[in-house]
Parts: sequence; C-alpha cells; structure tokens
Amino acid sequence: MAETNVIVLDLWASSYGMRVKIALAEKGISYECRQEDFEAKSSLLLEMNPVHKMIPVLIHNGKPICESLNIVQYIDEAWNHKPSLLPYDPYKRSQARFWGDYIDKNVYNAVKRVWTGKGEEQEECKKQFIECWKILEDELGDKPYFGGEEFGYVDVALVPFTSWFYTVETNGKLSIEEECPKIVDWVKRCMLKESVAKSLPHPRQIYAFALQYKQRHGLE
Amino acid sequence: MAETNVIVLDLWASSYGMRVKIALAEKGISYECRQEDFEAKSSLLLEMNPVHKMIPVLIHNGKPICESLNIVQYIDEAWNHKPSLLPYDPYKRSQARFWGDYIDKNVYNAVKRVWTGKGEEQEECKKQFIECWKILEDELGDKPYFGGEEFGYVDVALVPFTSWFYTVETNGKLSIEEECPKIVDWVKRCMLKESVAKSLPHPRQIYAFALQYKQRHGLE
Repeated sequence: MAETNVIVLDLWASSYGMRVKIALAEKGISYECRQEDFEAKSSLLLEMNPVHKMIPVLIHNGKPICESLNIVQYIDEAWNHKPSLLPYDPYKRSQARFWGDYIDKNVYNAVKRVWTGKGEEQEECKKQFIECWKILEDELGDKPYFGGEEFGYVDVALVPFTSWFYTVETNGKLSIEEECPKIVDWVKRCMLKESVAKSLPHPRQIYAFALQYKQRHGLE
Repeated sequence: MAETNVIVLDLWASSYGMRVKIALAEKGISYECRQEDFEAKSSLLLEMNPVHKMIPVLIHNGKPICESLNIVQYIDEAWNHKPSLLPYDPYKRSQARFWGDYIDKNVYNAVKRVWTGKGEEQEECKKQFIECWKILEDELGDKPYFGGEEFGYVDVALVPFTSWFYTVETNGKLSIEEECPKIVDWVKRCMLKESVAKSLPHPRQIYAFALQYKQRHGLE
C-alpha cells in the first residue's frame, strides 16, 4: 500500500521508535523516516510533540500521534486491514494492553540499569532485569508469540528491547539464554519476520551506541 | 442493565478506583464494590492482580482486568452501547489516549507532592502542580468537556483527582480557581453528572484520609 503522507520522527537506537517501524511494516505502510538528534531537536519535533518533545512521533496527513504504544494502536485502527495487532475480543484486548503497560513501566529501566550500572549496584540491577523478563517469560508460556499463534501488539511492544540484549550481556556478564531460554527462542522466531528484522538495528550497532552514550555521560 | 457478575476491588479514596466506578455508572452497569485494605490485601486481590497487587481490579465473569485506564477501555468495549467513552475516529481516539497517558504520568504525583510537601520543596511542587494543570486547561480550551460536547474518556481519567483539590488547596495554601478557572468550571460541570457525583467522595473525607496518611507516615 503506497502512502506518501506518513512520516516517522525517530532515533534509530530507540526501542520506542522500533515499535512504530515494526507496526507500519506489519501493515505494509511505506513511510519516510526522519532521524532526530537528541542534542538539537528539530523544530518539526517541537511543533508535533510540544508536551513531551520526544520521539517517536507518527505524522499522518500532517497530524501528529505521540507515545509509541498509542501510535501502535492508532496504526492498528487507522489501517484496520489484516494483520490485526490487537485481538478483536475485548477481554483479550485488555490483557494485551495490560502487558504493553507492564513493558512500558518496567523493561526500559531494567535494560538500561544493567548496561549503565557498576559493581554491587549492577548485581542488584541484574537480579531485577532477570525478574522482569521471567515474569514476561511466564506470560509467554509455550505460545509461539505473546499474541498466541500470531505475532501481535505485545510482541511489537517488547521485541525492540531485545536488540539491547547483546549490550546487556556484555556489560552485565550474564547469559539471557540461560535465564530465559523461552524468551530467546521467541526472539529468534520474531527475527524471522521481515517486519522485525528490518526494523531492529544490529546488536553491535546498539553496543557501539551504548559505549558512546556512556562516554558522553561519564558512566565508564 | 442488571449485571450480577461484576465486582470492583477498590479503595474508596483512590482516584484510580473512582475512574472505574464512573465508567461503570456511565454505562449503567451495576456492580459489587469490595473495599480493600492496603495494610492487609485480600487473597482475592493477590490472586486477581498477581503482578502489581494493586487496586482497582474489575472482575467480570470471574476474569480480572487490571490498571484503571485499561479497565475504562475494557468497559467501553465490553459494553459497547452508548454513551461511548472513547470517540470512534482513530485519530480522535489516539488524542484521547495521549491525554489519558499524560494524566497517568503526571497528575497523581503533582497532587500528592503538594499535600505531602513542606517549605521550599512544597513551593516548587506547587509550581509543578499548576504547570501540570495549566497544560490540561489549555487542552480543555473552551470545550465543555475534554471529550468535546460529550463527557468521555479523558474526563473519566482526570475528574477523580479533583476530589483532592480541597486537600491540595488547604495544605498548599493556593487557590486552584485563581490559577485554572476553566478547570474549576469543568469540575462543576462534571459534578452535575450523576455518574461522577456518586463516584467521588466528599472533599472533606479525602482531607481526613490525607491527614491520617500523613500521621501514619510521619509527614506532619
């Protein structure tokens, strides 16, 4: 489906931006992706997201939608052809939103604290990281995707953070495969999908980004 | 509409619990409300919300839905007769969800920091409180409700916190009416609705609750 009126304001290493790119790819929507610079935000970003001044922003026909999971829901509703990202049944929708919210409240911090942490504090952060992902692994259970048989909303919400696993493992000296084998199998399954594979940067690019970030913020 | 299979696990002073009660009242759903004790959570609460162990929980036909705005959306979708809380149009829905999310990320803390704060720190919290509500007042503009002509999702999300205004004003020595007159007019309009009036406790009950809370936590 050709759409010339879809712009994503993005930062390539942002897991939140990746969510939007995966959702658009799932729906087969072409778009223009504009990279933002956190140190010098564009006037378009400030105009389109005046409250938070944060990426990602989806601009559709000139109108902005902000906050990544809100954008994913908008994409699902505005282009309501298959595949559906959220299930149709109200109860199942509520469960998918619950887990999207759990991810928003816990995963970013769990990931960042491990790769920026040091010493004893880092050991505590590693425990919290594993606890957070084990709760998600329990929810996944033996299903192929969080959405069940089909890749869906919770998968879109979560899989971007796995592009940071290499950085977490290298900095935190831990094996996520040993701790959460089902999660690692799920990541491999998701990466077979073109929508995911083309939206996630290479783990070593993320690692280089993290190194630079730590240098810039005196966290080495 | 008679429903005998709807239970709300609640704490009467919780703004999050009030959202659920307003949404159910808007849809005309009768329900059983069970008060939880934060110091001794019921086994039902722990079973129904094992991840967060928090109220409110809506139990519908034995199945739990957690997180207040998720519950409000579920109520809107499961009982999809009028009045609709979220608009039908995908873009308008995304804007309503954006403001719901803004409220979740900012309003509780803005309110609590004023009534628990002291001295210079409290002065800073008062500034942040006013800034937060002025952003909301700008979004309201000259509309009767955040949802436009009709009371809707954002109104449900926000109006419970106004039951804390008396406590904020008394503890913080500020006049919300002077700072945000359109918000105060909006509160009066909302209070004319039975769904709101019967779901919000009296401001003096909240004040007594806040006093007790401060005594218990050594915040006087």
